[in-house]
Amino acid sequence: MIYSVIGTGGIGGYYGGQLAQAGHEVHFLLHSDYDYVKEHGLQVDSVNGSFHLDKPHVYNDAEQLPVSDVVLVCLKTTNNHLLPSLLKRVADEHTIVILIQNGIGVEEDVQAMLPDIQLVAGLAFICTAKIAPGHINHQCYGQINLGNYSCKEEERLTTIADEFTNAGIPAQLVEYKEARWKKAVWNMPFNGMTVALNTQTDLLLKHPSTRQLIREQMMEIVRAAQHQGINGVNEEFVEKMISMTDEMTPYSPSMKLDFDFHRPMEIKHIYTRPLEIARAAGMPMPKLEMLEAELRFLEDNLYQKFIIN
Amino acid sequence: MIYSVIGTGGIGGYYGGQLAQAGHEVHFLLHSDYDYVKEHGLQVDSVNGSFHLDKPHVYNDAEQLPVSDVVLVCLKTTNNHLLPSLLKRVADEHTIVILIQNGIGVEEDVQAMLPDIQLVAGLAFICTAKIAPGHINHQCYGQINLGNYSCKEEERLTTIADEFTNAGIPAQLVEYKEARWKKAVWNMPFNGMTVALNTQTDLLLKHPSTRQLIREQMMEIVRAAQHQGINGVNEEFVEKMISMTDEMTPYSPSMKLDFDFHRPMEIKHIYTRPLEIARAAGMPMPKLEMLEAELRFLEDNLYQKFIIN
Repeated sequence: MIYSVIGTGGIGGYYGGQLAQAGHEVHFLLHSDYDYVKEHGLQVDSVNGSFHLDKPHVYNDAEQLPVSDVVLVCLKTTNNHLLPSLLKRVADEHTIVILIQNGIGVEEDVQAMLPDIQLVAGLAFICTAKIAPGHINHQCYGQINLGNYSCKEEERLTTIADEFTNAGIPAQLVEYKEARWKKAVWNMPFNGMTVALNTQTDLLLKHPSTRQLIREQMMEIVRAAQHQGINGVNEEFVEKMISMTDEMTPYSPSMKLDFDFHRPMEIKHIYTRPLEIARAAGMPMPKLEMLEAELRFLEDNLYQKFIIN
Repeated sequence: MIYSVIGTGGIGGYYGGQLAQAGHEVHFLLHSDYDYVKEHGLQVDSVNGSFHLDKPHVYNDAEQLPVSDVVLVCLKTTNNHLLPSLLKRVADEHTIVILIQNGIGVEEDVQAMLPDIQLVAGLAFICTAKIAPGHINHQCYGQINLGNYSCKEEERLTTIADEFTNAGIPAQLVEYKEARWKKAVWNMPFNGMTVALNTQTDLLLKHPSTRQLIREQMMEIVRAAQHQGINGVNEEFVEKMISMTDEMTPYSPSMKLDFDFHRPMEIKHIYTRPLEIARAAGMPMPKLEMLEAELRFLEDNLYQKFIIN
């Protein structure tokens, strides 16, 4: 199968790099790092073993990518308005497009723009970052869960999961909706609260007031999910997420890094869309609604946060 | 009637000063400014006319105050644990103690400590501040609403309101519970949100997300109040508070000033107590619960807020 990677950052560089290193044909779309990677190749430092791709197939024009069997979309959702033009040539009706992105409502929104493509949610459990042009640093985990949204060929999806796994990327098929809502249980409280209180995961869980708040926000998601019949999102899962975060080193989620580096935050798909869906289902999430409002305010009043009195 | 003022800051200095200037006998308890005011007197700059009290009755020891007919408690509620010792001599069972303080549950908590005193809520609508030792600056408004909590002599309370009004302090008797909850409609959203987002009232109302959030927080208070049968706290009053704040100059509420100057915030009586009362009444206020948690976190992680990235 021919793979293409749209967005060669920490996620796309690592997953695409692993597939290429395992011998698959992988095409990388790059933007600012195109010249560097064309000349110097792609370096992947990984806890699972580092490697260098000397001559990866790289492109700076989406029109030049070949039609592919599988496309990994590894952009931030804040760039999803670009997908119709980015996917125009690389994806046809036989292509399976995997959105390795955060949030809820992502597939619905992309499908609305591109009704004919076959979409799969890719839920990555990984710590990885681009630390320099063409230089990926993979620190931990790496598993990817694939949730079928509109792929008509379940069998090919199994083949993809097998190719991922054989290339060193543990992959499994999961139920689409449950997977996205499960991921939200962690993402919605921690992404926004680290921004709102300018802190990291460990301090939020250390203080009794915010520890309780995080749990209550997670329970809002549980109630909204169960109200939609998604039963795997439950209190037991909440406790598992809290314990897991207790054991992590102090962590800044992606939204905190976006905020700190003055990049757009993924508010729409991490907050607005799931809040809309929960409200439409008759089970609003009031504390997470408040968090969304705070994030919208902070995004438009960035400087406010950083005035020293 | 003999008046005493416990806490001679912006509020106590202004109201006590007005009463003294009108010819009443007023005794002032001071703390850090005692020596200065004893020597130089009390200066009140006011939009209603400035004046100077050359030789006010001042004390730095609550035991020296005379037993008084009326005591104005003008401390922050964060100091209320001191009231049993501060009121021991100045207030007997005939004294009317007026708590000119922010929050809900204030009278209940003071009465629990001092079962025999007669308590009245004093709701001040005023912009005033102590700008230097013995120097009060009164910028606007000045009205005080008196809500009877446990005063057995309603007639004397009317006399007090008249003496206030004749001394240039417009005063009226109001229904206790409704008055405290009405004041909370403004106090709960604006005090905490200006701290949480490091901003002022005008920017909160300018941004559509926080404007809606403020309104939703106010409506949480309306629902909690109405659930307790307090019908004067309603949607119409919410719209009035929003319009009023739209017309104010950019404003930092007292909690924002406390936070900025690293003084303790009145979280207990502005948030914790009304939240407890609403929850016990079966009508929780989720967004204001979240705000309380954020404030508790910020109070204990002050420096967090002020790291520049």
